Amino acid sequence: MENKGLLLVLSGPSGAGKGTVCRALLQNNPSMVLSVSATTRPPREGEEDGVHYYFLEKETFKKMIEEGQFLEWAEVYGNYYGTPRRFVQEALGRGEDVILEIDIQGALQVKEKIPEAVLVFLIPPSRSELSLRLVSRGLDLPEEIEKRLNCSADEIKLAERYDYIVVNDDIGRAAGKVEAIIMAEKSRPRYFKRFFEQFLR
Amino acid sequence: MENKGLLLVLSGPSGAGKGTVCRALLQNNPSMVLSVSATTRPPREGEEDGVHYYFLEKETFKKMIEEGQFLEWAEVYGNYYGTPRRFVQEALGRGEDVILEIDIQGALQVKEKIPEAVLVFLIPPSRSELSLRLVSRGLDLPEEIEKRLNCSADEIKLAERYDYIVVNDDIGRAAGKVEAIIMAEKSRPRYFKRFFEQFLR
Repeated sequence: MENKGLLLVLSGPSGAGKGTVCRALLQNNPSMVLSVSATTRPPREGEEDGVHYYFLEKETFKKMIEEGQFLEWAEVYGNYYGTPRRFVQEALGRGEDVILEIDIQGALQVKEKIPEAVLVFLIPPSRSELSLRLVSRGLDLPEEIEKRLNCSADEIKLAERYDYIVVNDDIGRAAGKVEAIIMAEKSRPRYFKRFFEQFLR
Repeated sequence: MENKGLLLVLSGPSGAGKGTVCRALLQNNPSMVLSVSATTRPPREGEEDGVHYYFLEKETFKKMIEEGQFLEWAEVYGNYYGTPRRFVQEALGRGEDVILEIDIQGALQVKEKIPEAVLVFLIPPSRSELSLRLVSRGLDLPEEIEKRLNCSADEIKLAERYDYIVVNDDIGRAAGKVEAIIMAEKSRPRYFKRFFEQFLR
């Protein structure tokens, strides 16, 4: 792991505020790199190809799955989502710190493939707050919101397999906790091999 | 571990600045509790019994070892040092966060007995800086400093068995890193059992 970057996986139920916390992190840590996911769902208003997602045809996506080009992928509500492997591994190899903002099952897939990935589970302060956020962002139809809420109860039980849990009661506070996690993880012995070589010389 | 405190073990070679960083931590986190070690070495000027150490007779110390009253103990340069077990376990049981400021071998003993203890290895930025600090604090005779420096080279190889490593190039920065480590460790899933029970109700 010497000289390699940190892979931070920011995850949690839909409506936890992953995107907002992620933007705050990138603003405070301009050297961190955001991995862009691929998806087959249609772009929402204002979403740009290559910035928010790589928007792919279903056939292209399936071919990439067969070729093992994804670090994780899933079919969610009929659409495919995935993290292209190459971008992440090249950035880590150059020593860059990479953020993945992905769903819960995807995060656990990444941990299986890259055990040193640091998994952060972002969660709203309560279930009623989660419901409120899903409604007020106005992205989903009522039946989709209902589906997401039911789904999130099952997903939340997976949180104990994560490395860290951060309650998103306030964006600044939540981002600050994730930054503390990054600072702590950068203090792991594997990052100090060269330091000790020099120290003991 | 629910509702239990965090056990932070601050360790490192003699002259790494454990005491100074520890004082800074306690000042910034008044709810943290410092465990007072026991020793058979004579008090240095200004050291108070029960505050800096419990100063014990050798016979008393040996009796306590036999009774299993220490979380860790060692004989260093002819003197005994140890951490009384009862104080630490009672404070943790009440949910208080406890700091131990102890030597390297002691820290590894604690980790064996309490695996959830968080071990932080504090190290000066270079060997020449370590030597300078040992000389300038004026506590040791030249042959003791030589002994300490030789010993520290061996001890430093044990750093990879620690959870975290913090280079003490600046007291404020080092204390800040330890505080980030505390914040991260407080975000471990085991502290969220009650939160999830309420969330899923």
